[in-house]
Amino acid sequence: MSNNPEKKEFTPIPLDLKKPVPSDIDIAQASRLKPITQITEELGLLPEEVELYGPYKAKIKLEVLERLKNRPNGKYVDVTAITPTPLGEGKTTTTVGLSQALGAHLGKSVMTCIRQPSQGPTFGIKGGAAGGGYSQVIPMEDLNLHLTGDIHAITAANNLMAAAIDIRMFHEASQSDEALFKRLFPEDKHGKRSFGRAMLNRLMKLGIDKTDPDELTEEERSRFVRLDIDPDTITWMRGLDTNDRYLREITVGESPSEKGMSRKTGFYITVASEIMAVLALTTDLQDMRRRLGNMVVALDKKGDAVTADDLGVAGALTVLMKDAIKPTLMQTLEGTPVFVHAGPFANIAHGNSSILADKIGLKLADYVVTESGFGADMGMEKFFDIKCRYSDLVPSVVVLVATVRALKMHGGGPTVTAGTPLDPVYSEENLELLREGTKNMLHHIAIAKKYGVPVVVAVNRFFTDTDAELELVRKIAIEEGGAYDAVVSNHWEEGGAGALDLAKAVVKAAEQPAKFDFLYPLDWSIKKKIETIAVEIYGADGVDYSPDAEKNIEKYTRLGLDNLPICMAKTHLSLSHDPNLKGVPKGFRIPIRDVRASAGAGFLYPLLGTISTMPGLPTRPAFMDIDIDPVTGQILGLS
Amino acid sequence: MSNNPEKKEFTPIPLDLKKPVPSDIDIAQASRLKPITQITEELGLLPEEVELYGPYKAKIKLEVLERLKNRPNGKYVDVTAITPTPLGEGKTTTTVGLSQALGAHLGKSVMTCIRQPSQGPTFGIKGGAAGGGYSQVIPMEDLNLHLTGDIHAITAANNLMAAAIDIRMFHEASQSDEALFKRLFPEDKHGKRSFGRAMLNRLMKLGIDKTDPDELTEEERSRFVRLDIDPDTITWMRGLDTNDRYLREITVGESPSEKGMSRKTGFYITVASEIMAVLALTTDLQDMRRRLGNMVVALDKKGDAVTADDLGVAGALTVLMKDAIKPTLMQTLEGTPVFVHAGPFANIAHGNSSILADKIGLKLADYVVTESGFGADMGMEKFFDIKCRYSDLVPSVVVLVATVRALKMHGGGPTVTAGTPLDPVYSEENLELLREGTKNMLHHIAIAKKYGVPVVVAVNRFFTDTDAELELVRKIAIEEGGAYDAVVSNHWEEGGAGALDLAKAVVKAAEQPAKFDFLYPLDWSIKKKIETIAVEIYGADGVDYSPDAEKNIEKYTRLGLDNLPICMAKTHLSLSHDPNLKGVPKGFRIPIRDVRASAGAGFLYPLLGTISTMPGLPTRPAFMDIDIDPVTGQILGLS
Repeated sequence: MSNNPEKKEFTPIPLDLKKPVPSDIDIAQASRLKPITQITEELGLLPEEVELYGPYKAKIKLEVLERLKNRPNGKYVDVTAITPTPLGEGKTTTTVGLSQALGAHLGKSVMTCIRQPSQGPTFGIKGGAAGGGYSQVIPMEDLNLHLTGDIHAITAANNLMAAAIDIRMFHEASQSDEALFKRLFPEDKHGKRSFGRAMLNRLMKLGIDKTDPDELTEEERSRFVRLDIDPDTITWMRGLDTNDRYLREITVGESPSEKGMSRKTGFYITVASEIMAVLALTTDLQDMRRRLGNMVVALDKKGDAVTADDLGVAGALTVLMKDAIKPTLMQTLEGTPVFVHAGPFANIAHGNSSILADKIGLKLADYVVTESGFGADMGMEKFFDIKCRYSDLVPSVVVLVATVRALKMHGGGPTVTAGTPLDPVYSEENLELLREGTKNMLHHIAIAKKYGVPVVVAVNRFFTDTDAELELVRKIAIEEGGAYDAVVSNHWEEGGAGALDLAKAVVKAAEQPAKFDFLYPLDWSIKKKIETIAVEIYGADGVDYSPDAEKNIEKYTRLGLDNLPICMAKTHLSLSHDPNLKGVPKGFRIPIRDVRASAGAGFLYPLLGTISTMPGLPTRPAFMDIDIDPVTGQILGLS
Repeated sequence: MSNNPEKKEFTPIPLDLKKPVPSDIDIAQASRLKPITQITEELGLLPEEVELYGPYKAKIKLEVLERLKNRPNGKYVDVTAITPTPLGEGKTTTTVGLSQALGAHLGKSVMTCIRQPSQGPTFGIKGGAAGGGYSQVIPMEDLNLHLTGDIHAITAANNLMAAAIDIRMFHEASQSDEALFKRLFPEDKHGKRSFGRAMLNRLMKLGIDKTDPDELTEEERSRFVRLDIDPDTITWMRGLDTNDRYLREITVGESPSEKGMSRKTGFYITVASEIMAVLALTTDLQDMRRRLGNMVVALDKKGDAVTADDLGVAGALTVLMKDAIKPTLMQTLEGTPVFVHAGPFANIAHGNSSILADKIGLKLADYVVTESGFGADMGMEKFFDIKCRYSDLVPSVVVLVATVRALKMHGGGPTVTAGTPLDPVYSEENLELLREGTKNMLHHIAIAKKYGVPVVVAVNRFFTDTDAELELVRKIAIEEGGAYDAVVSNHWEEGGAGALDLAKAVVKAAEQPAKFDFLYPLDWSIKKKIETIAVEIYGADGVDYSPDAEKNIEKYTRLGLDNLPICMAKTHLSLSHDPNLKGVPKGFRIPIRDVRASAGAGFLYPLLGTISTMPGLPTRPAFMDIDIDPVTGQILGLS
């Protein structure tokens, strides 16, 4: 079979634009869909590289990377934003609209890479994350619900690990070394003991070169069977993909059957699990097995790291993740291809789509449009300093999404809250507020330029924006910010046709030579790296560390984890750690409450201020509007 | 298009039998698989009734039931067992072997209906549940891992409900009726308030016939917005598909952000969730929506039931379950079709495959072989008295699986424990022990006959069984038990060819006229129903109720839930409530610790003795043997 089979010609889906623009779900459900097999043929994928999940979704096997390894990469476009309001500024919508313009209007081959929405926000306050208006990924119901099960696989793997930790402590507490040995290596019917496959890495780590448990010396037995976990050092928590704030802090093990071995712990939302970060940052199955095995869950009583491989559970975790490692292919409203992979939440996670989706996309298409979560201080910084570092990929262009609404808020406009009507200032022309607010945009442009990548500002047009307002933003971005270009985009109302100018600007910017570089080298100390991000990206005066943070920085330095990149857990609603500080805050110091390690995924994550890793639900959660037509099966009210 | 498209002729997959029999995973991975589209064509399914999940799995849409509604049902065969050892007696293996014999050797059209394995046992002590030897459902990796995500969907729905309960209490505690009203019905940009779609059933229940929240009187507002849940009455728990005993009893809400509103609760394993029971017992989407809405999660402070519809979450739960309602099609090693649907654990759940899978199977095939969990006292009793009551289906034959090993244990043989070598008594001929143990089998035959259904005993042959032993069991089953027939079956070693005699006996038995009847009518009191099962099925002298049980029986009677069938949560390792009592225990009374209601699924479940709804992990869990070949991606060590 040919290594480069003939691609089927791309056929766009024409949009049937209506005004006023109907609801997202009405547009999505009225849309024509191509069979996903047509999309795979248009991409030149071989049938054996495709696993169908119903007619409109498919997982793409990693083997395609091997087949196309000699093909040059396409252009690599990252979409980021200014500091958003709690309502979001349409970053996914812009990502999709730009892609529709490139693919369905400019005749470029394009792959969009977005992250799988979490069910927490979908049923909570924000709704789904398929884009909006005439720039959406479809079927939006599939995207916003279970998709192909990746997040569920992470929940399962995360919680198998948690169960493995507690049960190991339970069994070690009640058994002698000899009893543990006998139970860890029960005799088979021929009286033979054997190592489980997933135990072998621990054996290697201990430097024991034996294949028969009965040959272990007494000292080796004791070292092998007893992990001696210090319960106060356990950093691994349980996870659910639900906004359930009552699980933030809990006590487990309170049944009499657990014999008083209760302890305090908690749940995070699944997308904040280290396993999600492993999925996003891994480069192949072997690498994923290694990263999962290296995840540090606690220290033993001597202060040494206890890993998933020590627990003998990393093989099972990899098996649970074997399908999740493959990106899911979907489509936009105009029929261009979309990879959905890894998870959101660039505040409490790194919140970028996966390296693997981007890499496959760059082989299949001339342009990859990938989205990094929240503002340039959040997802984009992590995209550059963590993701690009592990992928060796070089970004060509940054698209910075700005809205008049958010800029007015940064200029001093009243608070913007979900579920509350907007103040009229946001629907009437107000150039003063807007001009003041553009300082936030200028700061974000400057962040992106620090990395040597050209910036195109996309002003995401809302129907209340005036021409004078839009023009002011554009002008300031270019003249004061030094953006390569700045373009008003109307993709929400018009789909790809509304983003044509943006697409043309991106194509031109991508021809610029890139002089990409990281913000910091890995061999700097943990504190120097943290402080560099705080000062150079957030504009802080400095950093203050809590005693816990100091202790953990010392600990991770001692364990040799100080050469990892930094993944800040910070509010996305301000350049600072305080969500109330809008615009470009000055004269603040960043409080580091704690520092934790994702040793397998490959980063340290400081917790800034009061950031929580488990969101809650409002009085009227989105789920109250969601139902199903029991006769037709049509989903109602999902947004 | 024709309503009954021409079926493609069934093509069996010939087995390449090896001796000694290789490991389950080696047989499964070496097997040839038909594309699942070939299986759907052989079943006469239309392409639009099929949703592919990769090349070897498909979900089948419920629309097929409408298309085939006038086709007569096939014969309905239930496979059950004697009281098993903790190792299991090969009931799934027999179910699959019998199906392979019917379909691939006797030329009958057959559908096998099994339950989706839980990941708890798969990574815990028992391993997967795909059958074994040359009688397996494949690909066994898919079956034992995420399959098509049904159990994950239940976890998500179960825990969204749990979050909805706690957050509602949280918001009600801190807000006046007026504030709740304003937040539950925020004004949109035109100043208009509206009911969420999922709130409408509560509105109807309260007898309020208004469509505009602003028209509610103050009294109606107050009634609508305040559920006033009594925290001590909450019966809904969280769930995970993981054996995590530390979650049996926990305290939630201990973060300062929850303002001291902590409370004791716990997790069950997901398959014990009421939502799993709803999935198994529902008959269509509309029925599922209704059942999910009717689930009672707590009482309010006046003592009235609070349901999922009161919380406004039942629409979202249905949306989460919209794909799970469709059975998943797979295949046996010999290429006969298999539906996998709903979950196991007939001890702590009802543990039967779904009504929908069986119903579709009965339209598509002449024989449906369905499995009910554990012994005839457990899954089969629930199959008859709960599942057949809701499905209106009439079973044709019961196949009762017995093994020489389990019968010897019931005759007084030493304890059988997983992970410990078997006593030699189980591998040497011992007719005395065996004869004594057959009393357990006779009791199970008698249970099945009580329902008026002919019984065929399947003696599942192990390679250590002697001919004299097998013949003794056969003879006693027919002569003393009045079984319609009793047949030795060797399907583990030989696949369908080894179960040919069993298949022929089942075909003959299915021609007998069925005189099926339930054990009890629904209008009996709760206690009379419980006592009838205890005395007539388990052989108890009577029943003792704890004060909690008494209180809840009164409560559910007052709430009008006393006309539901009974789903006993009882150990499967004894006919009694005490797992140590083997054979046919006499002179015991059943202690009822508590009685709970699954008002949506449609049954009351008494808890007998110390039964736990969350299993634990042993010192060497199965996960320690599981790994992946990182180069080929082959899964190792799953069993």
